[in-house]
Amino acid sequence: MVVWHNTKITKEDRIKLTKQKPCILWFTGLSGSGKSTLANALEEKLYKNGNLTYLLDGDNIRHGLNSDLGFSSKDRQENIRRIGEVSKLFVDAGLIVLSAFISPFRKDREFVRNLVSKDEFIEIFVDTPLSECEKRDPKGLYKKARKGEIKEFTGISSPYEPPLAPEIHIKNLSLEESVEKILNYLFTKKYITRKR
Amino acid sequence: MVVWHNTKITKEDRIKLTKQKPCILWFTGLSGSGKSTLANALEEKLYKNGNLTYLLDGDNIRHGLNSDLGFSSKDRQENIRRIGEVSKLFVDAGLIVLSAFISPFRKDREFVRNLVSKDEFIEIFVDTPLSECEKRDPKGLYKKARKGEIKEFTGISSPYEPPLAPEIHIKNLSLEESVEKILNYLFTKKYITRKR
Repeated sequence: MVVWHNTKITKEDRIKLTKQKPCILWFTGLSGSGKSTLANALEEKLYKNGNLTYLLDGDNIRHGLNSDLGFSSKDRQENIRRIGEVSKLFVDAGLIVLSAFISPFRKDREFVRNLVSKDEFIEIFVDTPLSECEKRDPKGLYKKARKGEIKEFTGISSPYEPPLAPEIHIKNLSLEESVEKILNYLFTKKYITRKR
Repeated sequence: MVVWHNTKITKEDRIKLTKQKPCILWFTGLSGSGKSTLANALEEKLYKNGNLTYLLDGDNIRHGLNSDLGFSSKDRQENIRRIGEVSKLFVDAGLIVLSAFISPFRKDREFVRNLVSKDEFIEIFVDTPLSECEKRDPKGLYKKARKGEIKEFTGISSPYEPPLAPEIHIKNLSLEESVEKILNYLFTKKYITRKR
């Protein structure tokens, strides 16, 4: 091969295929707040609308890309940095990315926000009170944290910095209402259109 | 939100949307062998066929996700590991991923191969002789390596381990012939179908 070829398929090209405006839906909130539940329920609706999405969560990140990272504050920062960079690649690929991680620190979330264009980062604050999260305690983590078996547990022994101006604030809503609120945002701002 | 929702959109669901069989097209070969050129030319054809693809190369990986990595052998291994894990996520998302990196070591390529199902990893050996790559030297890197200004340069001061049984072997072919060879492979094995 001697000819140097300069064609590059761009995000704009891919948008013509996917017929959606790619973005990062960044779910942040305490452990047990319902981030993953909400992200999964939303993804199902988006799928049924014909949208191409990808959900990043502990299941597919912690066991793979970030399997070398622990829970020190340095590793937590690197965890979010990599998730942000991967989310950016997915946006470049034309997808709507749903990222569901506690991501307790404002500066880490701001780092991700600044990786992409202004309207490509949608912060969704899943604002479930600590008392409710602790009552649910789906993985028994709060119990362990209270006993001191888990160090630096967000909300108990490590701070959670709530978003100051999230694009979407989920508070006192049912799962269905929460999904609708996000869908309405996406339709209104033309990230997606009714395909089906 | 009290109801725990268990729906998950899977790779199989996404395949119904994208109407293609996701896979990793892993281009390996010396610096200057034409990996990126070939990957870009192929991606253009795939795009025109209506396929959803994403190309991972130094441009979007080294400045982002792997910006913390250098060129020590440990960092090179970590570089390929992360690219492999990200490629796997893209396959899970339903895309055809084109990864164009020298990836000189067999064990690193085998690591990526083993991350996904057997038929999801397609190794493409861009087998351009060292003498030809050095003659092209598009970035002037061989010149620097010969002068000793770059240490551990693949092909000069660091080994390149050629694939023993690549799925596709590109040798003595024009760019157009190379693209056709890969496209034929993808059509024949039903990764893609003629959409347009």
